[in-house]
Amino acid sequence: MKKTVGIVGANGYTGSELIRLLAFHPHVTLSFLYSRSNSGKRISDLYPDLTTVCEMVLTHQPEEVDVLFLCLPHKESQNWLAQNPVSDETLVVDLGNDFRLDENFESRNFVYGLPEINKKQLEGSKSIANPGCFATAIQLALLPLAEKGFLDEVFTTGITGSTGAGQSLQATTHFTWRNDNVSAYKTLTHQHVDEVLQQLVSSNQKQVNLNFVPWRGDFARGIFTSSTLKTDLEQKEIEQLYQDFYAEAPFVTVSSRAIDLKQVVNTNRCVIQIEKNENVAVIHSAIDNLLKGASGQAVQNMNIAMGWEENKGLDLKPVAF
Amino acid sequence: MKKTVGIVGANGYTGSELIRLLAFHPHVTLSFLYSRSNSGKRISDLYPDLTTVCEMVLTHQPEEVDVLFLCLPHKESQNWLAQNPVSDETLVVDLGNDFRLDENFESRNFVYGLPEINKKQLEGSKSIANPGCFATAIQLALLPLAEKGFLDEVFTTGITGSTGAGQSLQATTHFTWRNDNVSAYKTLTHQHVDEVLQQLVSSNQKQVNLNFVPWRGDFARGIFTSSTLKTDLEQKEIEQLYQDFYAEAPFVTVSSRAIDLKQVVNTNRCVIQIEKNENVAVIHSAIDNLLKGASGQAVQNMNIAMGWEENKGLDLKPVAF
Amino acid sequence: MKKTVGIVGANGYTGSELIRLLAFHPHVTLSFLYSRSNSGKRISDLYPDLTTVCEMVLTHQPEEVDVLFLCLPHKESQNWLAQNPVSDETLVVDLGNDFRLDENFESRNFVYGLPEINKKQLEGSKSIANPGCFATAIQLALLPLAEKGFLDEVFTTGITGSTGAGQSLQATTHFTWRNDNVSAYKTLTHQHVDEVLQQLVSSNQKQVNLNFVPWRGDFARGIFTSSTLKTDLEQKEIEQLYQDFYAEAPFVTVSSRAIDLKQVVNTNRCVIQIEKNENVAVIHSAIDNLLKGASGQAVQNMNIAMGWEENKGLDLKPVAF
Amino acid sequence: MKKTVGIVGANGYTGSELIRLLAFHPHVTLSFLYSRSNSGKRISDLYPDLTTVCEMVLTHQPEEVDVLFLCLPHKESQNWLAQNPVSDETLVVDLGNDFRLDENFESRNFVYGLPEINKKQLEGSKSIANPGCFATAIQLALLPLAEKGFLDEVFTTGITGSTGAGQSLQATTHFTWRNDNVSAYKTLTHQHVDEVLQQLVSSNQKQVNLNFVPWRGDFARGIFTSSTLKTDLEQKEIEQLYQDFYAEAPFVTVSSRAIDLKQVVNTNRCVIQIEKNENVAVIHSAIDNLLKGASGQAVQNMNIAMGWEENKGLDLKPVAF
Repeated sequence: MKKTVGIVGANGYTGSELIRLLAFHPHVTLSFLYSRSNSGKRISDLYPDLTTVCEMVLTHQPEEVDVLFLCLPHKESQNWLAQNPVSDETLVVDLGNDFRLDENFESRNFVYGLPEINKKQLEGSKSIANPGCFATAIQLALLPLAEKGFLDEVFTTGITGSTGAGQSLQATTHFTWRNDNVSAYKTLTHQHVDEVLQQLVSSNQKQVNLNFVPWRGDFARGIFTSSTLKTDLEQKEIEQLYQDFYAEAPFVTVSSRAIDLKQVVNTNRCVIQIEKNENVAVIHSAIDNLLKGASGQAVQNMNIAMGWEENKGLDLKPVAF
Repeated sequence: MKKTVGIVGANGYTGSELIRLLAFHPHVTLSFLYSRSNSGKRISDLYPDLTTVCEMVLTHQPEEVDVLFLCLPHKESQNWLAQNPVSDETLVVDLGNDFRLDENFESRNFVYGLPEINKKQLEGSKSIANPGCFATAIQLALLPLAEKGFLDEVFTTGITGSTGAGQSLQATTHFTWRNDNVSAYKTLTHQHVDEVLQQLVSSNQKQVNLNFVPWRGDFARGIFTSSTLKTDLEQKEIEQLYQDFYAEAPFVTVSSRAIDLKQVVNTNRCVIQIEKNENVAVIHSAIDNLLKGASGQAVQNMNIAMGWEENKGLDLKPVAF
Repeated sequence: MKKTVGIVGANGYTGSELIRLLAFHPHVTLSFLYSRSNSGKRISDLYPDLTTVCEMVLTHQPEEVDVLFLCLPHKESQNWLAQNPVSDETLVVDLGNDFRLDENFESRNFVYGLPEINKKQLEGSKSIANPGCFATAIQLALLPLAEKGFLDEVFTTGITGSTGAGQSLQATTHFTWRNDNVSAYKTLTHQHVDEVLQQLVSSNQKQVNLNFVPWRGDFARGIFTSSTLKTDLEQKEIEQLYQDFYAEAPFVTVSSRAIDLKQVVNTNRCVIQIEKNENVAVIHSAIDNLLKGASGQAVQNMNIAMGWEENKGLDLKPVAF
Repeated sequence: MKKTVGIVGANGYTGSELIRLLAFHPHVTLSFLYSRSNSGKRISDLYPDLTTVCEMVLTHQPEEVDVLFLCLPHKESQNWLAQNPVSDETLVVDLGNDFRLDENFESRNFVYGLPEINKKQLEGSKSIANPGCFATAIQLALLPLAEKGFLDEVFTTGITGSTGAGQSLQATTHFTWRNDNVSAYKTLTHQHVDEVLQQLVSSNQKQVNLNFVPWRGDFARGIFTSSTLKTDLEQKEIEQLYQDFYAEAPFVTVSSRAIDLKQVVNTNRCVIQIEKNENVAVIHSAIDNLLKGASGQAVQNMNIAMGWEENKGLDLKPVAF
């Protein structure tokens, strides 16, 4: 029997992306799509690509479900949960940043939902804080080194597609401005730095400095990052370290070929490449910010928490071109 | 038990796209990937997005299979079949244009693989000529009118993504040239015109004039067409005609909303919209040229020919953004 | 001595584009930049590319000037002129559509500012209605045929960059939506159709039918159109007709090569190409919608009206790539 | 009287861009365009945007000229000069990298053509080595700190448009691959690193480490870089340092606003922005790689060497959108 699912904030990018995934997931059925602002509208009127895929009407009345995804603006998940009590039996996956650093809320203790490090804790969990998009790309690029204590200071540049900024109309999401353009934002102060450091440090109890410069790119989907650091390890040693670390991770590939962003667009995968020159190493990583960086990882976390195969509903055809 | 599949010309865009689809198709298993020029190479070295999805090595030695897809340059399918005899029991789906107008080859009689008009003939067929990409988009836009004899002359403009030009490096596929650019090519003389007319005429035995201006667009995937024609039918009548015509077609949607190209990218769907002003109607249609316009339709045809559900392996997550 | 210039609506795309042109024009000096909503702001804060090029502060107090450009939303020019009386000695160039069809306003009689047909009337004129962007591209493609009475009915598709939609934030100008996308809008009902027909008909007093389908493209600058029509003229005859018609037009090129949009981006030029098959001709044209389609043509009109060289300030480096 | 100019390698991107600039330069006239491979062809057949701008025919017979620009593949300038003796009176500007590090060739002593540091030496010079594109963007971002000895180690990421890869057809310049894509190349080993270090070190005789990760972007024109470094200087102090350093530089702007790539596309300008958090500073810079990064800077160098105004022929309308 299929499990029931509700999506709160279903009218945003990550909410609609969850619908695109869950509509074809064999173990679940969508029970309700919650939206305060668009209640009463058909989701396929907001996202016509969902025509025939999902013709549900948005509601502002949640029901009891087996799995609840919260796709709200950052800091609004707490309010929603406070106003809409959820059964302890319901698996709650929060895609916002409310519970990534502050893990406790009422009787719930949120597990940080990066399966590549927390798979055991996620199994059977009822409360999952889904990581941020940049945070996912950077952590996957650095965790194998951090865990061994090989990481002291790192200089990371990352570039993100426009979907990372959400569907609101802003000067920096206007096509005329963004097309063919590149720019930096939140230099050294991006909100994901703390989230990354928490995991890097907890993996080895060693202080790490992360200097992160985020850029806006002129594409819609995807994140590409390059992290530069000093190390005496040989390239082969680093690659082996990463191969070992991700041996059981079905969605992470350590590549000996050059990687590029479109290798992962429209998939739940992360590709990583390591390069070395003298005593400097550079770790590149790429993900689809809406999938491995948000909704895909949320489904992966649900699969693990529910005891299903980790890749269920996530065998996605890459867009490739 | 799964059916075996071979792909000839697996290293091209349509061949690799078939791999992306068939790797997750529940009823088939890939037996061989044929390529003369890249024999011995791993397909994931040519298309790194296929890493973990398909790690097969290209070969130039075909095997006997249940289903054979030919993804060769136009006019090379005949040569290949002449040199590599194929069992009469094997379903051959040709994605080139060799058998679209000349349907007979040795003992085989090719069925034109547009399921929306030829579903009955495709069931159990062993030889299928898969339609061209522009031909698919234009036919789906015009067939309901043509079949009723309502079509005399039509003026069509269509725009295609760069994947339509294949993977060869040309001046018009150079990024520097194509980015932010639009241009016309093969004005009034595109090779798909005859293919479209053959079907339009055979549906009602009435002469039709198709004036087709193809454009190159600055995107990688997709085709958008607008066809203008004179008619005394009311918009509602035309819409009803189309709704009836496509009532059993799972991949065609007649939309009352404005359509746009990205509603169908990375899906096997076609969306159609009808607009009318005075005695002039405009029919818009959009498809993904590599899916409904090539490899997706080939899988759809295989499904029908083999007696499987028409949408098996084709429940694809739209890329949407 | 330089002539003084004022720009009303200087904070929009066409207004700022005028600044980019006039800042380097040898015969004029900018006196004021008028904006109600952004009064008090520096124009280079709104358009940082203007840093060092123009550091003027926007005002809502117009001054008396030799040349006044109105870059207001359509239908607001009349109101502005009614509220801000302008000397009869001032040349007024309106970039809106207020005076394209209704040519009379108080004591002013507006000349339609398409120099390729109205150069004589523009010389010494004090009131110029600058043509619309699509209207310019389509007229230049069709006028030589219309003037000779060779035009009866024409089917035109045109695609425009996002700057054509102005700087307001809309669903269809959001980068996430528009990137890699194509869509139709105002099918058969675009407001420029009447403007085009007025000129086509007045050139020969013969009725013409224009069926126009406008598309939105995924680039920022430029318009490309293809017009299909029936004719018994030979291609050579048509080309000669066009060469003769534009013999004195410095910004229009009739090309025997394939044309593409980027041949004219960031220039004031229009390129035209003619193709023929049997009794059907297709006329392609391309312009930069902000230059020959708006601000560049406005400067061209000013040059003619003031008795300066037509190309003064318009020898622009093409962006080309 | 105008000075005569020859361009060797006129059929490439930087060569054709020089034509776009020099065609409107008031002090020069083009004498010959040299190309071995395309000799006999009209340059406007290769670059149709040059129609009416320049209709010269490419030749393989150079003439004596006042100014000679070499736009050859790297390492071919030496060969060309050896085979085609040039008068000592001729100003030679080499856009390749032949003389950037090895400054002496026969009787010529090449001056490194970064006007912001070498203006005095460029005045009257007859031999100029024009800097590389990334080298220009990075040096302008770092020189003010290096000159004062404030620079020890820096971590730079830069992204470049496809024109940086030249007009040859390659897998990484294919539109289908590059559109919506990002990738790294020549990680830590880009050929411009030595060029940058030579200037940084010579400005203060202090060792500097530059860790540079270049990325390929999905746009045609422009370079954007972010350089991260440790410093105890206050942000205000750094900004003042830069303002002072560039006080006499007409093409460099130190911005207190957020910068983005399109602020400089189709101009000869460089914009720089400084951000600081705790003891870490980030310096962003942006240029058009074909202008300030190549042909525009070459014209700037010519202007200085010939004693003309530095910005002559370089008052370019920004493309802006």
